[in-house]
Amino acid sequence: MLLVDSRQISPVVEPVSKSVPPLPAAIADKLKRDEHGLFAAIIQQHDTKDVLMLGWMNDEALRLTLLTRQVTFFSRSRQRLWVKGETSGHVQHLRSIALDCDGDALLVGVEQIDGACHTGDRSCFDAGKLFL
Amino acid sequence: MLLVDSRQISPVVEPVSKSVPPLPAAIADKLKRDEHGLFAAIIQQHDTKDVLMLGWMNDEALRLTLLTRQVTFFSRSRQRLWVKGETSGHVQHLRSIALDCDGDALLVGVEQIDGACHTGDRSCFDAGKLFL
Repeated sequence: MLLVDSRQISPVVEPVSKSVPPLPAAIADKLKRDEHGLFAAIIQQHDTKDVLMLGWMNDEALRLTLLTRQVTFFSRSRQRLWVKGETSGHVQHLRSIALDCDGDALLVGVEQIDGACHTGDRSCFDAGKLFL
Repeated sequence: MLLVDSRQISPVVEPVSKSVPPLPAAIADKLKRDEHGLFAAIIQQHDTKDVLMLGWMNDEALRLTLLTRQVTFFSRSRQRLWVKGETSGHVQHLRSIALDCDGDALLVGVEQIDGACHTGDRSCFDAGKLFL
């Protein structure tokens, strides 16, 4: 009799499109998407609580964010998925996520590497302060 | 000769529609509105930095917010202006405001009276935390 330790069996390698899990139904069922299939994602530095930017996600962007733990948006101007920091290196490591009461916005806690803004600023709101 | 101290002259009372200032051009020119004339407003408690909710404004809502210093939104479901707390008393006193780098989102610092959420929670994100 041949004894096989199941831990030594290599897992079957599936194509990526099959092996990554779908967006959990517990989240997908609660999301309210706009007419373009998008919802807002507020990005907040997890420890200082500074709000860094507002981005947009679709289901696939959120699924990839949860899977990779790097924040991924859907770029409305470029009409494609966009891993934050994919060219600049200024990535956002996922730390927490919360859906709002009516399901159309996410609050995403991150560890932001360097500046969140394409201008180099730490926050996209740094340069636009209005003095009341 | 009759000497008149100009400070004693009562100002002419204009109808409200004429006497309130328009949205300053410095802001109006930078705003990028969506196809419904709206932009996002992230509401943050000014001292704790807790993010309380995401709402939507049009130019008139922002003008009223700046004028009255109480946050006013445009309700997408009711298709009308909505002074936050107009029925509950849970108003948001304006403390600061900043426009983001591409002009389609505002970060609004407030003093939130009681809960921001219609459920009674302090924040609209309190009940929807996902555990990663």
